[in-house]
Amino acid sequence: MADVNVSEMPKASAVRDETRDADTPRNSHVAKFGPDKPLRLDAGVSLAPFQIAYTTFGSLNAERSNAVLVCHALTGDQYVVGAHPVTKKSGWWEILIGPGKPVDTDRYFVICSNVVGGCMGSTGPASTNPETGKPWGLEFPVITIRDMVRAQAMLLDHLGIETLFACVGGSMGGMQVLQWAASYPQRVFAALPIATATRHSAQNIAFHEVGRQAIMADPEWKGGRYHLDGSNPRRGLAVARMGAHITYLSDAALHRKFGRRFQDRENPTFSFDADFEVESYLRHQGISFVERFDANSYLYLTRAMDYFDLAADAGGVLANAFKATPTRFCVVSFTSDWLFPTSESRAIVHALNAASARVSFAEIVTDKGHDAFLLDEPEMAGIVRGFLDGAGKARGLVAKK
Amino acid sequence: MADVNVSEMPKASAVRDETRDADTPRNSHVAKFGPDKPLRLDAGVSLAPFQIAYTTFGSLNAERSNAVLVCHALTGDQYVVGAHPVTKKSGWWEILIGPGKPVDTDRYFVICSNVVGGCMGSTGPASTNPETGKPWGLEFPVITIRDMVRAQAMLLDHLGIETLFACVGGSMGGMQVLQWAASYPQRVFAALPIATATRHSAQNIAFHEVGRQAIMADPEWKGGRYHLDGSNPRRGLAVARMGAHITYLSDAALHRKFGRRFQDRENPTFSFDADFEVESYLRHQGISFVERFDANSYLYLTRAMDYFDLAADAGGVLANAFKATPTRFCVVSFTSDWLFPTSESRAIVHALNAASARVSFAEIVTDKGHDAFLLDEPEMAGIVRGFLDGAGKARGLVAKK
Repeated sequence: MADVNVSEMPKASAVRDETRDADTPRNSHVAKFGPDKPLRLDAGVSLAPFQIAYTTFGSLNAERSNAVLVCHALTGDQYVVGAHPVTKKSGWWEILIGPGKPVDTDRYFVICSNVVGGCMGSTGPASTNPETGKPWGLEFPVITIRDMVRAQAMLLDHLGIETLFACVGGSMGGMQVLQWAASYPQRVFAALPIATATRHSAQNIAFHEVGRQAIMADPEWKGGRYHLDGSNPRRGLAVARMGAHITYLSDAALHRKFGRRFQDRENPTFSFDADFEVESYLRHQGISFVERFDANSYLYLTRAMDYFDLAADAGGVLANAFKATPTRFCVVSFTSDWLFPTSESRAIVHALNAASARVSFAEIVTDKGHDAFLLDEPEMAGIVRGFLDGAGKARGLVAKK
Repeated sequence: MADVNVSEMPKASAVRDETRDADTPRNSHVAKFGPDKPLRLDAGVSLAPFQIAYTTFGSLNAERSNAVLVCHALTGDQYVVGAHPVTKKSGWWEILIGPGKPVDTDRYFVICSNVVGGCMGSTGPASTNPETGKPWGLEFPVITIRDMVRAQAMLLDHLGIETLFACVGGSMGGMQVLQWAASYPQRVFAALPIATATRHSAQNIAFHEVGRQAIMADPEWKGGRYHLDGSNPRRGLAVARMGAHITYLSDAALHRKFGRRFQDRENPTFSFDADFEVESYLRHQGISFVERFDANSYLYLTRAMDYFDLAADAGGVLANAFKATPTRFCVVSFTSDWLFPTSESRAIVHALNAASARVSFAEIVTDKGHDAFLLDEPEMAGIVRGFLDGAGKARGLVAKK
């Protein structure tokens, strides 16, 4: 595999990456870090070798000052724009990212990497443990949001990018954005954490724990060693996804989309079939998820979110996590998001104010719940565009078109 | 087993019931209905023979006018007062029911029956199908809230009680209360539906479906035939319970009770152990639940709640369900209950107002979530006492003490 040479890379489409096969999008890459470049983990151990899979869109300018790191959420990946190689669906944030879009790939060099612990090419529990030659399974070290960000920083080093123009993400992606600002304040010009929090709440930990228990209760999970014999805890993972999916929506959105309508009939069947449309929808969510996601990765990434607590890392005072930060922030929440409610975003804003940071905040009125950050929310698009435009001027970035 | 002869029953303690063993509380009874008394079900079939297990507290007065039917919630049972024969814990509503308590057993004759479809003595999917001599399993007909109430009405006939002084219940118990008022308005003098709704919302159906899928995903469920070989889908049922339990609490209550505190330690273990107190608590909830509950019953009772829709049964107009009702109502909700939010109770009140019914309504401020109806909420206790006292005067009941 050829390392990506950014200086020879005026357009991402010109990048050569020998690890790509026919199904891999042309702007999909893998950065490999050898035994000499270990990833130091919060758990107290190092991960080496490891690799980070990522995509890029647009061109890095000569000053290397227009890079935007997009951080994905729990079940997201690096396929933020363009067809997903497994699902063939369009990228998860095409609504926001592309030529002329709020995150304008005609102006910015967009990078999106699969988090460490993930299952779309970055090293995770499904990867081979070099010491055993077998999949890591539960011997993979527990990782944190800070570990994900540390790996992303190594990726930027590898790409020769010292400072991000912007770091953008929602949900777990927003946690990474906040961690970037806290860990590497000099490397983030502008930060856009959306629908997120500086710590996972007890209720959210509880929902995650139910999902993990559903996976671990599946006999095909086999203590995490299901890769060894080709089994797969599909049913447990589907149940975990179904439960989580409810938390991504709102009562109002579910009522609007499904209400109490029956599936393809007028009356109840008096059975345990998927009688109601909402049941059929949820089952579909569960079944389609297991086609593209690794159950152990789900355990590791939910755990990383549970452990996330920026204030605890800063001696109990959240504002200290952002002390003297030069980064400018834009914090966004959604009224019907009960997983990461506006109160969590307000706590971020209060801490940033206490740290005398430059911060703007928007609460967007919608009934779409937490998932709103992935959906066509014109107000969100306008805010992202406006914030990046303003930051771009301050950064001296000039539109190419 | 001896049928209970109410006319010979000045005190419940004097009742003889030959089906009782040493572990069964003395006021625990079973009413058996033979092939000549089938339970007609909404599914279009009849259940016969069947039996209803119930408890009684206090004495029926000479006029038979002081009976209070207490309806239990999804995972409740007839052991509303006194030690539970399986868990040995105190009754689930001792806070409200007993001598001198708001539902005063010195004044009222309290009856609490295990719902049909349940697993604590009433006929349900774990009972023997007389046609096969084996447990019903999924061949048990799907039952509805109206079926539960129909069975309770047959129990009252059996006990020689024409009219209930009051019908009281929370959550699924509240659904039964509303169904009682709708199905048998002449038989309910006063109705007290607490923390409930006239129809299950899309979000609530969704949560139920996740629980059912967790049970059905457990290989020990075996298509519902686990009783045949002594297996038991414990892990699936525990996951279902864990998920449901989160919905019974509130974010604020979980934060107050557990926050992000670690279990017996200062720092994370970087593992999938129950690191956080809230995880340990949830796991305990799941494990202890499977000791006392049948997985198939859980399927049937959640399904009954999903199907509940009083307005649909009344031609789409909720007020028609209560047309010209003589019953007096007291509707109670809790501010932090997001499973049956106050808006659902208001819909009940609006429908009752439209039906010109006598109704009072109280929304109690608490952070305890849906479970508040089972907890020590002095305002709820005061409201229940006051409503029953007032109704008792109207009914001509005189306190014995």
